[in-house]
Amino acid sequence: MDMHELTRELKVKNDSKIVMLVADGLGGLPLEPGGKTELETARTPNLDELARIGVSGGSIPVKPGITPGSGPGHLGLFGYDPLQYRIGRGALEATGIGFELGPKDVAVRGNYCTLDANGNISDRRAGRIPSEESAPLAVKLREVKIPGVEVFVEPVKEHRFVVVFRGEGLGDKVLDTDPQETGVPPHAPKAEDEASRRTAEVAAEFVKQAGELLKDQKKANGLTLRGFAARPALPTFEEVYGLKAAAIAVYPMYKGLARLVGMEIVGKAQTLAEQFEVLEKSWNDYDFFFLHFKYTDATGEDGNFDAKVKRIEELDALMPHVTKLKPTVLIVTGDHSTPSLLKSHSWHPVPTILVAKACRTDRVTTFGEDEAIHGGLGQFEAKYLMMLALANAERLGKYGA
Amino acid sequence: MDMHELTRELKVKNDSKIVMLVADGLGGLPLEPGGKTELETARTPNLDELARIGVSGGSIPVKPGITPGSGPGHLGLFGYDPLQYRIGRGALEATGIGFELGPKDVAVRGNYCTLDANGNISDRRAGRIPSEESAPLAVKLREVKIPGVEVFVEPVKEHRFVVVFRGEGLGDKVLDTDPQETGVPPHAPKAEDEASRRTAEVAAEFVKQAGELLKDQKKANGLTLRGFAARPALPTFEEVYGLKAAAIAVYPMYKGLARLVGMEIVGKAQTLAEQFEVLEKSWNDYDFFFLHFKYTDATGEDGNFDAKVKRIEELDALMPHVTKLKPTVLIVTGDHSTPSLLKSHSWHPVPTILVAKACRTDRVTTFGEDEAIHGGLGQFEAKYLMMLALANAERLGKYGA
Repeated sequence: MDMHELTRELKVKNDSKIVMLVADGLGGLPLEPGGKTELETARTPNLDELARIGVSGGSIPVKPGITPGSGPGHLGLFGYDPLQYRIGRGALEATGIGFELGPKDVAVRGNYCTLDANGNISDRRAGRIPSEESAPLAVKLREVKIPGVEVFVEPVKEHRFVVVFRGEGLGDKVLDTDPQETGVPPHAPKAEDEASRRTAEVAAEFVKQAGELLKDQKKANGLTLRGFAARPALPTFEEVYGLKAAAIAVYPMYKGLARLVGMEIVGKAQTLAEQFEVLEKSWNDYDFFFLHFKYTDATGEDGNFDAKVKRIEELDALMPHVTKLKPTVLIVTGDHSTPSLLKSHSWHPVPTILVAKACRTDRVTTFGEDEAIHGGLGQFEAKYLMMLALANAERLGKYGA
Repeated sequence: MDMHELTRELKVKNDSKIVMLVADGLGGLPLEPGGKTELETARTPNLDELARIGVSGGSIPVKPGITPGSGPGHLGLFGYDPLQYRIGRGALEATGIGFELGPKDVAVRGNYCTLDANGNISDRRAGRIPSEESAPLAVKLREVKIPGVEVFVEPVKEHRFVVVFRGEGLGDKVLDTDPQETGVPPHAPKAEDEASRRTAEVAAEFVKQAGELLKDQKKANGLTLRGFAARPALPTFEEVYGLKAAAIAVYPMYKGLARLVGMEIVGKAQTLAEQFEVLEKSWNDYDFFFLHFKYTDATGEDGNFDAKVKRIEELDALMPHVTKLKPTVLIVTGDHSTPSLLKSHSWHPVPTILVAKACRTDRVTTFGEDEAIHGGLGQFEAKYLMMLALANAERLGKYGA
């Protein structure tokens, strides 16, 4: 059963405030077996105090053993079953660069490639052309004109770009044109269903005109298209939870994910301190606040244990800016683990604290991986966290009489 | 969602080695409340060391409170949801005696019974006729000839046998002929669907000819048929996990279960020491090794607490033969509990250890029921263990971007 069927039915409005602070990639691993993780190493008096007065647990982002990307990781925290709701690659890529997808859009991830004299791919990534060289190409590709369709082209890093086709009757079931090998030409765009035939034609026309515009390029004289995807159909926070929700994030990806579930993007903060200022300023205008802190993930991805520890301490030091607002429910969690040891996202449960009047405090007194999973929430799937938040905010009525 | 949809999509090949050591019926109970279980009583320095460096948990074979047979118990450990995949009684019985079922087979569990002068059942188990007397009857029944169908008859213990019909167009939806009471004749085989009509006819012909062959028997002059079942359609380890898998087992049932998921049966070991020799010899040829140790279950079934303790110590003493091979992921678990106290399988979570580089070691330092459920894996459904194994072997890619 979709949990939203329950929350829709049971949701109740009140004046409570819920804050969900997501420290991206928060969970970690010790560098040596039996050692301490980044979070366990960090000096975190404020978070420890929250662990002491709150209830702790280990959040399993998707299912045991499954390592999520940012999309499924956040959908889970937002209470959207990440196995039920999937965001296509093109849509996620567009979201990641801050492109606001509309209902008539199909977003596609593009790669520049190098074609030889026979039109066969000699380099699938155009020699990993640097961003300075590839960005102007996206601007050039905006010259493509297709009747009845708006075409948007946006640069991404190195050989990557995003193209969005906006128009009527554009299905998104079109196969990738990237043949995944060299020595052959890119595939022609091919529709998998009738509703996507027009999209395949539009994509073919785009490829043709783009080929003309790029033909004099040395490296990036061709392109491939992958992950055709419409805006995913996600119900909004207002509809499923009755929450007016604000997202206070720095990076476009997380703003985009929040927008997909109907949150409003608030403020233009560039630092965590500024994010907390925005939180305070907008306190009266929303029921739910999603705050996203990126650097716990970024330092983990870099494999920089000490830097991740420092970023956690930085977060800890600023926590009084949240607690002074006395949210009805305060959650501190992460969308997945990013252990410095692995330099990548991982499947491990994410330490999580929930603080609220009736949270049933446990014996946990510090914030850390090992402590958290022995807390009152035990290990739970991330998708249930929003239900616990609503319950603790007294925003869920009784199920059945 | 079927977890195999995920593993199929995310699976990655590498050179890692996964060993899953299944001590059958490993979990137990103390003889007195507050006492120690068999495993907690046993002296297990090697397993304790694995608990110390690994992560522990309690594996729930199917769902809380559900006691599994060997079939569902192993399917769960192999990552096949035991509520989704069911092995029919006939197929499991055939598998248990080492009969290799093919795609055109319908396997049926047979019971000899005693019929009175009116053809009514007077004893449903033919006086529990001893195996020495019943085994020759199976050989006699092989004289049954049915046009277009191959008939295999194999003895099982006491009044039991297996019959397999092999031919085209044999569905397996045929009702049991055992009326479950005496004083009435066996039912005629009856098809539940059109595709099984021929099977019911074949079964009726078998019953008729068998009746002739058995008519002079004193006790076993009749038979009933139960659990008509085709070979279950299980996807293979290679297909769902990308693993080339070996099974190193002594008993036919476990070889049979392994074969059903596409494992190769390796070696002809008759003892645990020989099983470990086979493991070492075949180390380079497979990605995954299933080792099955039977005697923890058998001693539990006997209600022999001390013998089960000894068998656990025997297993412990041989563990260095596994650890010296340095598997990427080493799992020690059981398919269910078999407490000596109950003399039967039970529903209790099975103590489980997983050892791997990034397993996130917990505070558990000994191998035992109480310690295990407080470990880093908490209590989990057995069907997720393979996903954790794959994740720890770095054989699962990221889900979503």
